Amino acid sequence: MKIVIVGATGAVGKTAVNALEGRHELIRVGRSGGDIRMDIEDVDSIRAMYQQAGKVDAVISAVGHVHFGPVHEMTSANFMESIGGKALPQVNLVLEGIDYVNDGGSFALTSGVTNRDPIRGGAGAAAANGALDGFVVGAAVDMPRGIRINAVSPEVLESCREAYDGFFPGHHHVSDVSVGLAFCKAVEGCLSGQVIIVE
Amino acid sequence: MKIVIVGATGAVGKTAVNALEGRHELIRVGRSGGDIRMDIEDVDSIRAMYQQAGKVDAVISAVGHVHFGPVHEMTSANFMESIGGKALPQVNLVLEGIDYVNDGGSFALTSGVTNRDPIRGGAGAAAANGALDGFVVGAAVDMPRGIRINAVSPEVLESCREAYDGFFPGHHHVSDVSVGLAFCKAVEGCLSGQVIIVE
Repeated sequence: MKIVIVGATGAVGKTAVNALEGRHELIRVGRSGGDIRMDIEDVDSIRAMYQQAGKVDAVISAVGHVHFGPVHEMTSANFMESIGGKALPQVNLVLEGIDYVNDGGSFALTSGVTNRDPIRGGAGAAAANGALDGFVVGAAVDMPRGIRINAVSPEVLESCREAYDGFFPGHHHVSDVSVGLAFCKAVEGCLSGQVIIVE
Repeated sequence: MKIVIVGATGAVGKTAVNALEGRHELIRVGRSGGDIRMDIEDVDSIRAMYQQAGKVDAVISAVGHVHFGPVHEMTSANFMESIGGKALPQVNLVLEGIDYVNDGGSFALTSGVTNRDPIRGGAGAAAANGALDGFVVGAAVDMPRGIRINAVSPEVLESCREAYDGFFPGHHHVSDVSVGLAFCKAVEGCLSGQVIIVE
């Protein structure tokens, strides 16, 4: 398969690369590096990426940033930072990409643990993850030409243990290999409309 | 208790009014009628509503509109109509309202069935519902002064059977009384961070 991986150099994206390389043709997409450069928050940039990549069999998205902070200090703009930083860009990658995905192809988005196992200051992240989880459930039934769509929703990755130290007290750390397997299931498997939880 | 009900004349809002009136002081808020008029999509209007209402014990939100349409015809703007029409307004009602809710008070938002049992053309609705469900899970752990927050997520209401005929094939219709009881549980009960499913 020809597979676009957006955010291929990030912690989550690397798990997908490691799990899929060798068996597939990977097109690594990133803001500042990779085979194609793209700004995920710019729809024109997403369109240009697809034009350059051409027809593909799968699109993996492993990007997004959110606002962290207690809800009683959160503003409407802070909330929209989370939606606009994580949910909207990944949704746009789908909306702009459907015509570029071959019959029977698939999308795999990345949400996360915070909307089922919350952390302090994580309401924006939880909302963005919930929006993504909801979107894949809703979008799957509409997808044309047998295209599938799923979300991978991982717990904190083992490789991010130090970076997130203290923010996820008591949360498990999942192996990066397990997260990569979830992307294999999304891309190479048969599921659609699923939130593939890794924990 | 003194309870603000936003969208009190809508189908969902009426269930809350019917379930709570008599035992509590209700402040009905609507776009074109009620005790206080408010445009839920205008943060200044939300602020003005709270200034007029003063301190309250609970805030119920039963409002929102979304974009319906197949995902392969959906634009980025269509997606944001759903977020901006249903998720953001209810989140703003919380963000602006925390200082007006008494210690131990509560918020009850309204999401819906589409992010767990999808319908054709409902990806935007599913994303908005997922954002709301995620937000209450995330926000609950941050709430100050013992304030609780939950979402009521109903199936299609019996009173909406005709209006939604054909859009929710095979879905159950839940009694309006059951939906009202969910708001009672949210406001008068002890739960927080829960998506109270009515189906």
